[in-house]
Amino acid sequence: MIVKPMPISGFRENLPEFQLIEDNYKEIIKKNYSLSGFTPIDTPVVERLDVLLAKGADDNEVYAISRVNGEEGDDSDLGLRFDLTVPLARFVSQYEGELTFPFRRQHISRVYRGERPQKGRFREFYQADIDIIGNGSLPLFADVEVLSTIYNSLKELDFGQFVININNKKFLSGFLESIGVTNIKETISIIDKKDKVRHEKLKEMFLSIGLSEQTIEKIVEFIKFGEEKTSTEILTYYSQFDSLLLKTGLDELKYLYTSLISLGVDEQYIKINPSISRGLNYYTGTVFETFITGALNMGSISSGGRYEDLASNFTKNNFPGVGGSIGLTRLLSVLESIGKIETNKKTTSKVMLVNMGDDFLKKNLEIIRFLRQNLINTELYLDSEAKIVKQLKYANNKKINYVIIIGETEIQNDIVVLKNLYSGEQFEIKQENLLDYIF
Amino acid sequence: MIVKPMPISGFRENLPEFQLIEDNYKEIIKKNYSLSGFTPIDTPVVERLDVLLAKGADDNEVYAISRVNGEEGDDSDLGLRFDLTVPLARFVSQYEGELTFPFRRQHISRVYRGERPQKGRFREFYQADIDIIGNGSLPLFADVEVLSTIYNSLKELDFGQFVININNKKFLSGFLESIGVTNIKETISIIDKKDKVRHEKLKEMFLSIGLSEQTIEKIVEFIKFGEEKTSTEILTYYSQFDSLLLKTGLDELKYLYTSLISLGVDEQYIKINPSISRGLNYYTGTVFETFITGALNMGSISSGGRYEDLASNFTKNNFPGVGGSIGLTRLLSVLESIGKIETNKKTTSKVMLVNMGDDFLKKNLEIIRFLRQNLINTELYLDSEAKIVKQLKYANNKKINYVIIIGETEIQNDIVVLKNLYSGEQFEIKQENLLDYIF
Repeated sequence: MIVKPMPISGFRENLPEFQLIEDNYKEIIKKNYSLSGFTPIDTPVVERLDVLLAKGADDNEVYAISRVNGEEGDDSDLGLRFDLTVPLARFVSQYEGELTFPFRRQHISRVYRGERPQKGRFREFYQADIDIIGNGSLPLFADVEVLSTIYNSLKELDFGQFVININNKKFLSGFLESIGVTNIKETISIIDKKDKVRHEKLKEMFLSIGLSEQTIEKIVEFIKFGEEKTSTEILTYYSQFDSLLLKTGLDELKYLYTSLISLGVDEQYIKINPSISRGLNYYTGTVFETFITGALNMGSISSGGRYEDLASNFTKNNFPGVGGSIGLTRLLSVLESIGKIETNKKTTSKVMLVNMGDDFLKKNLEIIRFLRQNLINTELYLDSEAKIVKQLKYANNKKINYVIIIGETEIQNDIVVLKNLYSGEQFEIKQENLLDYIF
Repeated sequence: MIVKPMPISGFRENLPEFQLIEDNYKEIIKKNYSLSGFTPIDTPVVERLDVLLAKGADDNEVYAISRVNGEEGDDSDLGLRFDLTVPLARFVSQYEGELTFPFRRQHISRVYRGERPQKGRFREFYQADIDIIGNGSLPLFADVEVLSTIYNSLKELDFGQFVININNKKFLSGFLESIGVTNIKETISIIDKKDKVRHEKLKEMFLSIGLSEQTIEKIVEFIKFGEEKTSTEILTYYSQFDSLLLKTGLDELKYLYTSLISLGVDEQYIKINPSISRGLNYYTGTVFETFITGALNMGSISSGGRYEDLASNFTKNNFPGVGGSIGLTRLLSVLESIGKIETNKKTTSKVMLVNMGDDFLKKNLEIIRFLRQNLINTELYLDSEAKIVKQLKYANNKKINYVIIIGETEIQNDIVVLKNLYSGEQFEIKQENLLDYIF
């Protein structure tokens, strides 16, 4: 029976040319996370359902697993993780005694959401998370480390201009407090929607939770001021306010901002933005969201913040933390849709040896061995009877940079012919000089 | 509500010190696969159930997914892959027109099996696969590439002695044919069990499929001969036989063996072993299985072979291939159980800066920035008020190599103190000379 293979919506899959780019992105992120001492963990994709649902997650979006034709109850308590934070919380409380705190971990892996099929919504996607978890307490410098590491990673990906919008929940709450708002959580969750709804709709929502026209006006001004003014102007302007909460938040923001600059973060790429709130009540201090210039309406590609207690569902011990996440699948999908991804290779091979027949096999094997030992990705064209034209076409299709040809004449003269398929140049050289020509 | 986190049997999870080793293994394997031009693919963990079950897989071991509290029928047609070969077959037939053949792919990822919980049996594990797929035909040199690449990977992992046992199904079938066996498939599937059952039991099984005492004796001799003699002795001895099938298999084995030696494979690590069969009818030519010396009874850690048709369930086109797989999770679990894994680090950090207080923050940030830019993994101890003893204990616990201390005196004299925690040595040096001391 023939089963026709078809794509499954929400599950992205790459052809080799795009996979090489995704892998390169992953390596760059991992390298930068490691440079800042974030050690990798790699928990199972599968967790117990009671762990996944402990916090009252939207269980309609959680996938459970069960054996096809298995008996009733087999593994019926297991499901697929929907983020990397719940597994971190479970991990930290499970191995508390074996970890050294503050615990810095990175986790680059896939998560699963039972989303309704929809464009740009993924049911399987990569997240690249870092978190620093303290045992009992955690200094503010942890926030600096998370932000600078996210910045270094995104910068090295080199996809163009982006802005990390930074704020502090204490600053935002303090401001609302200072203008007389009492239902602060509800107000913040409306502010969080400001980029997604029209101005009138926003006002309506504020009115519906009982804010006065005057208060609403102040909030709207606050948002506008935050978007228009520079980070330094914002820090200066609000230092006059005398709400204690606002001041604490502002001091934290100032410490964070100046430390980031000292660590080499380019001012163009960060902005203090007082109306960033990240909705979630989970966050208690620093929060951030990152947008690609030219793709603002496509949502944040990296976000995170400071939270008071990571693992309250799993242990009575207190684990405050700060974390950040790069939404790798979303980032690639946004870059692809704004035309920022150029694929240029279809294979890991850098060199292809033309196969002139089995008489030359031994010489070819000698060269393959030599090049691979020198960490040059190399393959021999497999079919020893194929015409040279066909072999070069294969190399061209796969965008392999270099081709090596060894035939009768070359063996006699103890040389090889090296062809650069990009520049069109061709050299007759000694085998031992190959490394001087291949970059 | 507090949910107590517990391990799930069959789902391996690493503490950081072991994860660093697993990641290093993955990188070495990936590097070697790439050196031979195997380009990565990364298909979803989720496939359609009809794709997974097309070949009549043991559906009792396949996991299906469904949304917790989802409506009847939501995603009910999806499951988790149980190997990386079915996804490859589906991928090749789905994107046939966009791939260049022969298609060399690597895939290092997890697979899922609904196994009954049992020691050493995993329900989630990493496989590291390579395959070369031809369109219509595929030269024998592809087998050389797969075997040499598997060898290079295992060799660089540097865990000690292993032996790749190589055989050819044509050779084995040819031999059985030459001694008058007619039910060759059944006989081979019994030979495949030779390491798992006692001698008497094996004989019983042969008798039960109707082999004569005399034939059984010849098979037992054949197995013994193959185990005792060297590769060269085996190739020489059987070249006298005049079965055409046997001769074809033997010629392929000879070509494979001599090519591998030319490519630098050390004779000690490969052995032609005529009784290796890999049970599966799937394989048609080259087959191999790899055992770690000193852990023979723990099963093969890498295996594979040549097959006639990868994707017959998904397309009428003919895709012959050859592949090999390193069972990464099993390999690590075997090495762990025979005491071959020494963990020596608990973090990616190579350097820790002692935190002498916020007065020194700026200088510390300058040095962090300098070291990270020079690709040295560095962290600052977070708590600026912790005693030095506590800070050094943290570095010791995590087995960080180097510690840097900057206090009043150091700032005045424009130096830093660098302590090597392994050797105990301590240096007072200029900041710009740090890279000469940190390895």
